[in-house]
Amino acid sequence: MTGSTLPVAVDAMGGDFAPEAVVEGAKLAFAAGVNVLLVGRPQELGDTGDLQVLPATEVIEMGAEPATSVRRLKDSSIVRAAEAVRDGQAKALLSAGNTGAAMAASLLRMGRIKGVARPAIAVPFPVFGAAPTTLLDCGANAQCQPEWLVQFGRLGVVYNRVRWSVERPRVGVLTIGEEAGKGNDLVKEACGLMEAVDWDAAGAHYVGNVEGRDLMAGVADVVVCDGFTGNVVLKSLEGLMAVAQEQLQRALRSNAQVAATASVVDPVLAPVFRTLDAGQTGAAMLLGTRGVCMISHGSSSAETIAHAIGTASKLADENVVGSLRTAVEAAAELGHHPDA
Amino acid sequence: MTGSTLPVAVDAMGGDFAPEAVVEGAKLAFAAGVNVLLVGRPQELGDTGDLQVLPATEVIEMGAEPATSVRRLKDSSIVRAAEAVRDGQAKALLSAGNTGAAMAASLLRMGRIKGVARPAIAVPFPVFGAAPTTLLDCGANAQCQPEWLVQFGRLGVVYNRVRWSVERPRVGVLTIGEEAGKGNDLVKEACGLMEAVDWDAAGAHYVGNVEGRDLMAGVADVVVCDGFTGNVVLKSLEGLMAVAQEQLQRALRSNAQVAATASVVDPVLAPVFRTLDAGQTGAAMLLGTRGVCMISHGSSSAETIAHAIGTASKLADENVVGSLRTAVEAAAELGHHPDA
Repeated sequence: MTGSTLPVAVDAMGGDFAPEAVVEGAKLAFAAGVNVLLVGRPQELGDTGDLQVLPATEVIEMGAEPATSVRRLKDSSIVRAAEAVRDGQAKALLSAGNTGAAMAASLLRMGRIKGVARPAIAVPFPVFGAAPTTLLDCGANAQCQPEWLVQFGRLGVVYNRVRWSVERPRVGVLTIGEEAGKGNDLVKEACGLMEAVDWDAAGAHYVGNVEGRDLMAGVADVVVCDGFTGNVVLKSLEGLMAVAQEQLQRALRSNAQVAATASVVDPVLAPVFRTLDAGQTGAAMLLGTRGVCMISHGSSSAETIAHAIGTASKLADENVVGSLRTAVEAAAELGHHPDA
Repeated sequence: MTGSTLPVAVDAMGGDFAPEAVVEGAKLAFAAGVNVLLVGRPQELGDTGDLQVLPATEVIEMGAEPATSVRRLKDSSIVRAAEAVRDGQAKALLSAGNTGAAMAASLLRMGRIKGVARPAIAVPFPVFGAAPTTLLDCGANAQCQPEWLVQFGRLGVVYNRVRWSVERPRVGVLTIGEEAGKGNDLVKEACGLMEAVDWDAAGAHYVGNVEGRDLMAGVADVVVCDGFTGNVVLKSLEGLMAVAQEQLQRALRSNAQVAATASVVDPVLAPVFRTLDAGQTGAAMLLGTRGVCMISHGSSSAETIAHAIGTASKLADENVVGSLRTAVEAAAELGHHPDA
């Protein structure tokens, strides 16, 4: 009867290592006390243990065109999972599959929170020794209006408060200089609008311009940008981390003498690499739909999936969607309509 | 009488460690056979050895507004250095100071190559085991027209050929998906224009969409984007590298046992960190002005400065500006006017 007994609907067919890694992750989450509803082709899921299974005969592939696929493949795992949330059979959705399809399915089946101009993908960027910095939008909206960035800020503030218990999140705008008036046309307009917002009333604090180099320096809790910029930054950092890890680890095996230090060196480096990879392993949330939609990286391991299911469960239990709705309504009462 | 006997004009007052690191770097370059003209306040330069000095009484600070400063501070080191190139006293300019001021001084004093819509900052991104990938624009133009991106591609192709002897550079557009039609409005339009170009005739090869994660993977030699996106990516990668290096090195000193491996571990990791830092240490060139303008990172060491002076000298000797002019003229003859 409470939200917490409802399962998290998991798209068992989505992800580079699906369904194996997803089923394995779901079992780990279940063992840790989170109820799970696996959605997919029952005959392909292997041993699902005590997990509930919702059959879905179709699969939206990683490279497929999202909107068309969601409209056409009505019995796909991601569409059925989104419907389970809409119909109250599940309290949240998790997918490691086609991100666009997860967004489209959530948007079309759950719908938007009233007053939300455009949902945005919120991605945590790791900060050593502090809560992550949330960057949004990381790819839902390639082309943005300045008003949307302001709303992304409002949504991000609520999300940060619920997810990481940041009491008074600092919110900023991603741009290319420290001084006011720096940026492209979109950012300049957005900054003007951001400065006019009563962030205090939103329980937040406006810190102004944030540069790329500050994303992991802990200078802001929430940073807004258009979905094109956010996605390029996210992927660029992923690319650098992949190259850096590969080359550093190759160097640490490049001669017998250094290879012999592995038993001492590897254990101290592993947690650093793990934290730096958090952009890849920490699940993103689509903010603005009428249900929790969490998106994991395609290459997620079983452990990453399990962790993301736990996060989805917690966010649903803490009614993050209700808090987002309240914040959007409060802004609307003040006359702040992002589409106006 | 040949270009190679002319000096490189070096803005002695620009950079976080100026003038000391700059003068030191200039001496290193001179010792390696490159003629240098130091530009700055003679009394602040210390021992300049055999280097020529061009006195300039003013300094444009790092945070100063570029265009205004260049107009107002006519006797500043960066303005005098740009004039030295314009007047044929120097074959190239190098500054580690205010990037915007270096751009503005070059643009206002040297002028644009005829037919160039907007000069762009070309930054090398390291690729292990291959020539760097050049990303442009990395910050000269926060707001871009699609036609400019095409011209950035042409300029970048010539630059790559001269600087790294890449015979037939692969050129692509930075965007957020692999499939055609992905991106924001600017990128979609630019991609359409890029596809219509005869890259074969430009001695290049068009590879289409390049994602952020590919920037250091060696899939393209030249990648074009607007200056806002390029600058955000550049700074984000810098930020990640700084955090990663700091945390990894801290971990490698976190207990006595691992600290004891330093003499074996540090020497193999150092070259990897050095290469990964190339975005920070490899000088950028402003492409499109009627003279070579190289820009080094503000935190450049003497060695970095010396290396950048050598690069500026080589590019001038190989007449990179002439080659850029020829490429722009050839495109214009085909009716490709970026401002049309």
